[in-house]
Amino acid sequence: MAAPVIGPEIDRLIQLLARLPGLGPRSARRAALDLLKKGKTAMTPLADALTDAASKITACSNCGNLDTSDPCHICLDVKRDKSAICVVEEVADLWALERASYGGQYHVLGGVLSALDGVGPEDLTIAGLIQRASDDGVSEIILAMNATVDGQTTAHYITDRLVDCHVSVTRLAHGVPVGGELDYLDDGTLIQAMKARRPF
Amino acid sequence: MAAPVIGPEIDRLIQLLARLPGLGPRSARRAALDLLKKGKTAMTPLADALTDAASKITACSNCGNLDTSDPCHICLDVKRDKSAICVVEEVADLWALERASYGGQYHVLGGVLSALDGVGPEDLTIAGLIQRASDDGVSEIILAMNATVDGQTTAHYITDRLVDCHVSVTRLAHGVPVGGELDYLDDGTLIQAMKARRPF
Repeated sequence: MAAPVIGPEIDRLIQLLARLPGLGPRSARRAALDLLKKGKTAMTPLADALTDAASKITACSNCGNLDTSDPCHICLDVKRDKSAICVVEEVADLWALERASYGGQYHVLGGVLSALDGVGPEDLTIAGLIQRASDDGVSEIILAMNATVDGQTTAHYITDRLVDCHVSVTRLAHGVPVGGELDYLDDGTLIQAMKARRPF
Repeated sequence: MAAPVIGPEIDRLIQLLARLPGLGPRSARRAALDLLKKGKTAMTPLADALTDAASKITACSNCGNLDTSDPCHICLDVKRDKSAICVVEEVADLWALERASYGGQYHVLGGVLSALDGVGPEDLTIAGLIQRASDDGVSEIILAMNATVDGQTTAHYITDRLVDCHVSVTRLAHGVPVGGELDYLDDGTLIQAMKARRPF
């Protein structure tokens, strides 16, 4: 019954939109219908942007960031601090830290160690990180993995691998989020925040 | 700070994705990153589907449905019941009813009457509906507007306009949704369901 109503072109568009994270079949239909109603003025720019991005975006061979140039703009930027490398799991984390005005270098691991998912050190860019950390100009490695079991396992593993590199290894502070209410916080965070208390 | 990190191509893609209904700035970033990570295999088909849809989709001059042909596949389908026209607000409602296996004709109004938003009868396809309802083959007009104040106002207005057309005017039943629990239903729906009770 559905086949003759929604033409193959519309159906294909819905299927492809539904693959985006955050869009299910229902919201993909809504998005497709919104695009169809707006017509060419909405669809052509999006199609062009996709084609443009598909042809130009590449992973930086130095840090793993996704950008239009290799090395990426962050690695090329002479104004940025070259002595600190912030290690993140994914490019999304890099974007998040960049919004927080971090001014140093990055290293994107491409995931975390996970025995369950069969992800070992050779599946991540850890070898590249060790090599960069051995460079004379680098004095600090900031571990900014997610505060999950796998993230922290990966952080410990990297710390062990970095012992010969003569760099200081730091990690992001744990504590009460800005704007957070103590009553709603989990115990683990509160314990960490209490342990890491600082003079006021 | 953000400018050098996210290239203009990525930024543009995020901006355009964020315009889709159901995607905010954060989920648009996630969607863009997902597309970028998957690379050409994900982006090119979506770009092609958009270009394809943009060039082929048109509104049916008879019923207002969006399709690749004019008249649309529903209006052209000889197997469908020509005696009933189901009046809906938007194409999304048509798709919803089509999933519910309705086998007649449709008429898409393109909105509802709304004094607040300045939408009058001439802004909707009501004149076209009256013309179609005057056709000899049509015996029933099913009003399937949303159960909102504006939707029901529009339904009353259309009923008034149809008095000379010799068609029976019906509307969708109100009642308890399938799977719904009485305790969670609003009073209005329960009152309607009680009024419209039927022999078991």
